Amino acid sequence: MLRMLRLILVGILGLGVPVFKATTALAASLALAGMLLSACAGPGDPLPSWNDGPAKQSITDFVDRVTDPASPDFVPEPERIAVFDNDGTLWAEQPLYFQLLFALDRVRALADERPEWQGRQPFQAIVEDDREALGRLTLHDVVQVVMATHAGLTVDEFNRHVADWLETARHPRFNQPFHHLTYQPMREVLDYLRANGFKTFIVSGGGMDFIRVFAEEVYGIPPEQVIGSMGQTAFEVWDEGPVLVKQPEISFVDDKAGKPVGIHRFIGRRPIAAFGNSDGDLQMLQHTAAGEGPSLMVLLHHDDAEREWAYDRESHVGHLDAALDEAHERGWTVISMQNDWSRVFAFGE
Amino acid sequence: MLRMLRLILVGILGLGVPVFKATTALAASLALAGMLLSACAGPGDPLPSWNDGPAKQSITDFVDRVTDPASPDFVPEPERIAVFDNDGTLWAEQPLYFQLLFALDRVRALADERPEWQGRQPFQAIVEDDREALGRLTLHDVVQVVMATHAGLTVDEFNRHVADWLETARHPRFNQPFHHLTYQPMREVLDYLRANGFKTFIVSGGGMDFIRVFAEEVYGIPPEQVIGSMGQTAFEVWDEGPVLVKQPEISFVDDKAGKPVGIHRFIGRRPIAAFGNSDGDLQMLQHTAAGEGPSLMVLLHHDDAEREWAYDRESHVGHLDAALDEAHERGWTVISMQNDWSRVFAFGE
Repeated sequence: MLRMLRLILVGILGLGVPVFKATTALAASLALAGMLLSACAGPGDPLPSWNDGPAKQSITDFVDRVTDPASPDFVPEPERIAVFDNDGTLWAEQPLYFQLLFALDRVRALADERPEWQGRQPFQAIVEDDREALGRLTLHDVVQVVMATHAGLTVDEFNRHVADWLETARHPRFNQPFHHLTYQPMREVLDYLRANGFKTFIVSGGGMDFIRVFAEEVYGIPPEQVIGSMGQTAFEVWDEGPVLVKQPEISFVDDKAGKPVGIHRFIGRRPIAAFGNSDGDLQMLQHTAAGEGPSLMVLLHHDDAEREWAYDRESHVGHLDAALDEAHERGWTVISMQNDWSRVFAFGE
Repeated sequence: MLRMLRLILVGILGLGVPVFKATTALAASLALAGMLLSACAGPGDPLPSWNDGPAKQSITDFVDRVTDPASPDFVPEPERIAVFDNDGTLWAEQPLYFQLLFALDRVRALADERPEWQGRQPFQAIVEDDREALGRLTLHDVVQVVMATHAGLTVDEFNRHVADWLETARHPRFNQPFHHLTYQPMREVLDYLRANGFKTFIVSGGGMDFIRVFAEEVYGIPPEQVIGSMGQTAFEVWDEGPVLVKQPEISFVDDKAGKPVGIHRFIGRRPIAAFGNSDGDLQMLQHTAAGEGPSLMVLLHHDDAEREWAYDRESHVGHLDAALDEAHERGWTVISMQNDWSRVFAFGE
């Protein structure tokens, strides 16, 4: 854990976390790019950003089997549940989880209103970009940052902060709004599964409230199908009326063994398809594989330093170690980003 | 709380909780009765078991307004979220919450396998139907009963127990399977709302896992749209493979102020329609009413001793006190079971 934290902090330092403020509204550009892409694709190919190969094949074969009423593997529509990790599976997670970048930006934005942070770590280090002090942060400090910037807000206020940030902040490497760093091939999988009667869910270690702000517009996944980690929330009656207020306590960590627990809690039935990219997703994949009927387990391997990033066992985010071993042993689908995807993001090219 | 518990125990004693074991499969009878009812209804009336009056009118008027694109109150389909309490709103809750009757039956069924319960309260009192000892039970005892009978089971085992119980147990007054004590008029409201683009959710103080066993078949509500109280669950790898095991700890109580919290957690947006029957539903109704757009708040008043039960302020279940006052003050819809419903259950008549 400490090693991981050190690597996270190296990530912060190496990055310097610049945030480009821009006023242009680019929100619609990704949808437009997607439409153009679809128009260019060969007719009938539901996954135009995928190269032909075993990964693509395993997905389309599975969908054919479970949707064909004549197949012994046929699955009735209400049971076609597909779950997706978010960070590193549906969108990028480098150089740091995007929600952490959001929280660091919130500290900087709030610094003037919070004189009590002056001289207090980790806040001063973040505001002053003091690399030496940042290097001494503990995991407790990181949790403190997220809590200090999220707690006390009503859920409506929090949602507005996230929406504003997505509108204005830019990714340091690609100079794009963060929600443009969603993977075009995975968006195609989401659409393809839904067109075949699947219900698609996000099951993320990241904050549920954070993801819900953009999941419907960006992924076509409504808030009620987004599962993630969460803080406590309190119902309070203020002068303006009843409100829900975010509290400085963690309620549920939707990671590792927490993922099947979250799936049971929020969905109440076992998925037949699961997509992940790290050891945090292993138990979700095991839980999916333990079903009695057909199932599809997919791991995304980040091996494309040129178009995205190449990392797995040694990375400070998205550890992929036990999950990759088990995927190979059990014959799960492993996506090579470099080989299996003809395009990564909808922008550029 | 102690007074409520005493009243609950009086309910147990007065009832004696007989359980009629029967082998006939009656599961399909309710669906058939519903079909026959629909066939008899006048064409075009989506709520045939409702008498014309202000309650029925308020529901159909609301649906007309929010679904008419020309109306200033039009609500886009994804935001048409309707939430329903379960005990006392969608099915009966007398003489005791049905899940508590299930738990008491589980104690009796397990007694032979659990010699450690002999001489130990509250178990011995339940097994022997010892009214004096039952009269001394505390709330802690009741929680202990639910935990002792639910915990340690995998979620699949628990689901099977509930399904078996629904198949074989009979309600003491009506001699019907418990899921036949669902309210036909409310089932019509569920269908009617869904036919108009609403997504329907249960938001219950009762156990989520318990309700999910029958909600899809009985109400047309899939497990992922059932919110309720829950215990902790653990992901464990047994010899047979990975399993989810119910733990003897409460994780979330979905009642009173917990209801809007649960709604935020599981749905992530504010409902525009809410149906309840007790003070446990008040905060859910307040939260719904606090939305910026149109909203419908409905309270079911149990005032029909002949066909169901008549109770409110003095009842040992389903306290209706502050909620009834607030409903009258704020002009929320109050359903009089006696006056507004032409039929209560689908069976009989």
